[in-house]
Amino acid sequence: MAKILLRNAEILGQDGIVKSADIAIDGSVIFQVGEIPAAWQADKIIDCTDKLAVPGFVNTHTHAAMTLFRSYADDMMLMDWLQNKIWPAEGNLVAEDVYWGTLLAIAEMVKSGTTTFSDMYFHMPQVAKAVAESGIRAVLARGMAGVAPNAEQALIESEDFFHQYHNAADGRITVMLGPHAPYTCPPEYLKRVVSLAQRLEAEIHIHLSETVGEVDECKKKHGKSPIELMKDIGLFECGVLAAHCVHVSDHDIAIMKQANVRVSHNPGSNMKLASGIAPIPAMLSAGLCIGVGTDGAASNNNLDMLEELRLAAMLHKVHALDPLLIPAKTAVEMATINGAQALGLGKVTGRIEPGFKADITLFNMHAPHWYPRHDRISLLAYSAGAGDVHTVIVDGQILLDNRSLTTIDEEQVMYEANKRGIRLIK
Amino acid sequence: MAKILLRNAEILGQDGIVKSADIAIDGSVIFQVGEIPAAWQADKIIDCTDKLAVPGFVNTHTHAAMTLFRSYADDMMLMDWLQNKIWPAEGNLVAEDVYWGTLLAIAEMVKSGTTTFSDMYFHMPQVAKAVAESGIRAVLARGMAGVAPNAEQALIESEDFFHQYHNAADGRITVMLGPHAPYTCPPEYLKRVVSLAQRLEAEIHIHLSETVGEVDECKKKHGKSPIELMKDIGLFECGVLAAHCVHVSDHDIAIMKQANVRVSHNPGSNMKLASGIAPIPAMLSAGLCIGVGTDGAASNNNLDMLEELRLAAMLHKVHALDPLLIPAKTAVEMATINGAQALGLGKVTGRIEPGFKADITLFNMHAPHWYPRHDRISLLAYSAGAGDVHTVIVDGQILLDNRSLTTIDEEQVMYEANKRGIRLIK
Repeated sequence: MAKILLRNAEILGQDGIVKSADIAIDGSVIFQVGEIPAAWQADKIIDCTDKLAVPGFVNTHTHAAMTLFRSYADDMMLMDWLQNKIWPAEGNLVAEDVYWGTLLAIAEMVKSGTTTFSDMYFHMPQVAKAVAESGIRAVLARGMAGVAPNAEQALIESEDFFHQYHNAADGRITVMLGPHAPYTCPPEYLKRVVSLAQRLEAEIHIHLSETVGEVDECKKKHGKSPIELMKDIGLFECGVLAAHCVHVSDHDIAIMKQANVRVSHNPGSNMKLASGIAPIPAMLSAGLCIGVGTDGAASNNNLDMLEELRLAAMLHKVHALDPLLIPAKTAVEMATINGAQALGLGKVTGRIEPGFKADITLFNMHAPHWYPRHDRISLLAYSAGAGDVHTVIVDGQILLDNRSLTTIDEEQVMYEANKRGIRLIK
Repeated sequence: MAKILLRNAEILGQDGIVKSADIAIDGSVIFQVGEIPAAWQADKIIDCTDKLAVPGFVNTHTHAAMTLFRSYADDMMLMDWLQNKIWPAEGNLVAEDVYWGTLLAIAEMVKSGTTTFSDMYFHMPQVAKAVAESGIRAVLARGMAGVAPNAEQALIESEDFFHQYHNAADGRITVMLGPHAPYTCPPEYLKRVVSLAQRLEAEIHIHLSETVGEVDECKKKHGKSPIELMKDIGLFECGVLAAHCVHVSDHDIAIMKQANVRVSHNPGSNMKLASGIAPIPAMLSAGLCIGVGTDGAASNNNLDMLEELRLAAMLHKVHALDPLLIPAKTAVEMATINGAQALGLGKVTGRIEPGFKADITLFNMHAPHWYPRHDRISLLAYSAGAGDVHTVIVDGQILLDNRSLTTIDEEQVMYEANKRGIRLIK
């Protein structure tokens, strides 16, 4: 692979300070940051004047192919939406739909600065194909519902998928197991998932405590909160990425800290679906690792991580009437390094530092809303837009070049996704 | 002025339905929407294939020149922020700073689809100059603080400004009186503002009930809520645009309805400053006219009305745990026709209909996040970004053409605003 020199960028460093420097990329890895020796010969030089180099965003929870249902059904009660709109439409999905829907999602994610995403869906070999072809980084989990007719099959497919795709695509793909949620996976089924995870040394991606209803139901049925139940059945003995965690008690949070459960916070989805406001400040105080996720585009309705980190920064301030909560720097960290840690990739991506993978987003700051330049992190967190994303590099490969996708035929993807999306809801 | 034909646009109509049609613009006015007779000769034809034509956004409350303080001070307590950061910096402002700061704001607003804004600040002739030169539409108010040393001067300047600029710039500028707030304007001062307003037949733009603290203080001092106090001193006998209205009771809302007070809802500012969540659903149920505003860029931190209408749609859902509140269509109306009505321009702008001023924003829908096309209003409200704004027309004049500003020297504005912004905080 090539050597790329990003010359004269303003770089968002680990300490939250922005400094001007060069970035040398050798193959898939960041080789050096700072003054690059003249002897270092790059194959390609990118002039980064007036560009802010940020670690590529890490979207810790989505269902990529659900882009196909974007704008199909909004402003509805959750169960009405699921039972009468989303599930019937998902029943019409064939494998190729998932491929095209995922490619649409990847096109959108790359164009809004995301370099890694964590997905839970089905027809996962199609998702892996889209990831491999497009060049993005992803953590993939085959969604499993213990109450579904295909519950057994889902376990078998998950194991097969793990063997076939974990560390595939030059290591850009890693695989987790994806039991959907405690309300769709009875304890006995979850215990089998745990056994499988332990045998494979796989981690687990699961929805936990998203709505009041499911928490109440869990308490009624099992006498415990979902978090308590998960602990008791041994789920937290595996590494766990827990999406949502909206309705968790202080006791739940203590359990999560004890077990090092990592959280994917999805403020946009939680707001639009009216699920509630997750106690993120309390979880941060407890020392939990918290990333940000968009959830699927059917419930958000986009995959824009800048919007998501801004919601994370703003929602908790107004909820607690405390403007000091989740400052800009914290929100950006949640969308980058903390997200990477939540996905088990904390030494791989999420920082612009030597030895990390070259997953970098360049923002074009040459626009009115980036002036004056009092504080670049504030500008990124509170003022910037996805349209400012200029160049995106993943694993040392340029996936977006001056807003043009280099590995994805954008026209074909929009055409196919539109055609398929409209067929699915018929 | 010229005749412009927007050919083959998808048009967001009054009924919330999107239809394909042409738009004929004659001078400053929309002449016809639908099939335009072949005999109608346009001077310029714009091909609108794959463009969504939306009434230009109406930003009902901002302090445009405060763009100069964007990213200067964030994540702080309100009074700490005002007293130690914003007010000292504002003390350094000279008239020309306000001109350049306002032009920066207008550049940003036009590029994000806003065609009308309502401003309250000082050095208002400089604001009017920027509005006149740039071609945007604006409702301007000279901010007045009765407790300030220049309180008398502010009344005189407000009257002069009204005489000189009301209906200026071919009618694109209208003028209101701008008493800042009950906590900065004692009742006797406000009564003088009311007298002046009645003499001039001017309307009033004021901040009301933004924070808990000011409401408590008002009750302690006057035994009434700010809304009750305003009623009793006769302010509501004028037409009133009230910004924020975060902490209003049911009784306050009834008073506001009775007096036809129009509200500017500023969710982004209210979230970031942790002011609270305005009871917008209750105000809508009461039949109040509610527009959306960004507030100044020092507290938001941008002037992106799409972000603002999306926050309006999402914040109240999660606050009330009711996903049916403020659906996409309502949010878009708040940012267009309802905003126009709130500014007293309900027959002038905010709709794409014959007889209305030609204030139109064209969104480029040819991007991944606009697919599939299940519902264009949902796509606009929940998926689109400011970067999708392609063309903006105000009063029949093209201000943005394929994302290039036609009336503003963007380079010069960014240079001047940056230089001045940095000087101000020294």
